[in-house]
Amino acid sequence: MTPAGRRPGNQDTRADIVDAARAAFAETGYAATSLRAVARRAGVDAALVHHYFDSKAALFVEAMQLPMDPGLVPHRARHTADRIGAAVVEGFLDMWDSAVGSSTSFVTVAQAMCASPETADALREFIAERVWRQVPGPPGESEELHQRRQSLVASQLIGLAWARYVFRVEPLASAEVTAIAGWAGPTIDRYIRGDLDPPPTFD
Amino acid sequence: MTPAGRRPGNQDTRADIVDAARAAFAETGYAATSLRAVARRAGVDAALVHHYFDSKAALFVEAMQLPMDPGLVPHRARHTADRIGAAVVEGFLDMWDSAVGSSTSFVTVAQAMCASPETADALREFIAERVWRQVPGPPGESEELHQRRQSLVASQLIGLAWARYVFRVEPLASAEVTAIAGWAGPTIDRYIRGDLDPPPTFD
Repeated sequence: MTPAGRRPGNQDTRADIVDAARAAFAETGYAATSLRAVARRAGVDAALVHHYFDSKAALFVEAMQLPMDPGLVPHRARHTADRIGAAVVEGFLDMWDSAVGSSTSFVTVAQAMCASPETADALREFIAERVWRQVPGPPGESEELHQRRQSLVASQLIGLAWARYVFRVEPLASAEVTAIAGWAGPTIDRYIRGDLDPPPTFD
Repeated sequence: MTPAGRRPGNQDTRADIVDAARAAFAETGYAATSLRAVARRAGVDAALVHHYFDSKAALFVEAMQLPMDPGLVPHRARHTADRIGAAVVEGFLDMWDSAVGSSTSFVTVAQAMCASPETADALREFIAERVWRQVPGPPGESEELHQRRQSLVASQLIGLAWARYVFRVEPLASAEVTAIAGWAGPTIDRYIRGDLDPPPTFD
């Protein structure tokens, strides 16, 4: 899975492919879009798409202007099993910290999602396939509970990014990532492994 | 604090005041904007602003197109001290659920914040004065810790709204608000009252 060697050659063709991919993902979602369909839309040979992009995930990351492949976050967190929540928070915020001020910042991605439900749908599918598939639930747990855990983890991570980069509320706006990981990590741990069943009665 | 009686009269004047307020809040923030300054900017008498709006908070809620005054959430939650986190989640999501599809939806407010750091700043000041001032920290706790608690609560609430209305990830997108309150309430409780000190050493 080493990069296929990006020739400086025809940057216009590459940009055309990225544009076509963005349109295709928004139109048909992440899962249903093939590299072949992107090639057709861009008017190029499928081999050329493969030449520029190793995978559909890599093309999506660029089309959506994500700062990096979020599929790397659980990979990184796997090595810190005793404090996985903190590691997930760290990986997530490090990713977005590195993108502050660039065209791939959290604010620009958030704007794109607000502006287009289709973009939000495509990103959700991408995360499901690229991130969550790496993190299977415990055996015997229902699919509903597994999804509940995932959506709650997503809510806390997105909320931290929102507070840090958009709402810019202190101390989250300028605290060290490791400190935030210490504060919010136990939340992620509970969402991943804790008891989430609501109390039997609730008015 | 009963409404001052809104005459159907001159809706243009009222709209002018709201427009002027929006510009003033964005320019000078929430705290530093006076109703008198809004009146000057709108070219009307200050008494007229008071005629249409009971308070600066009411004018801000309308200028920012918030679905309701968020200052009412802690008031409501105060009556449920044993599960305050769940009550806060419920109050927050009920507020935004009631606005889905309207011009004051979470998506429109989120878009405004992404598009303008000044709007985000004004909203942050408003929340600090209107919501957090109602919820003083325990005596003896540092101001830094108190702010840390507030910003973490904000991060989880905003993240839940984001997951429900923008990212639309299931089950958060369509679960009952009371169910979500059961899942995420303990997170809010921990942020409000729990031990947030990061571990002494970290990786």
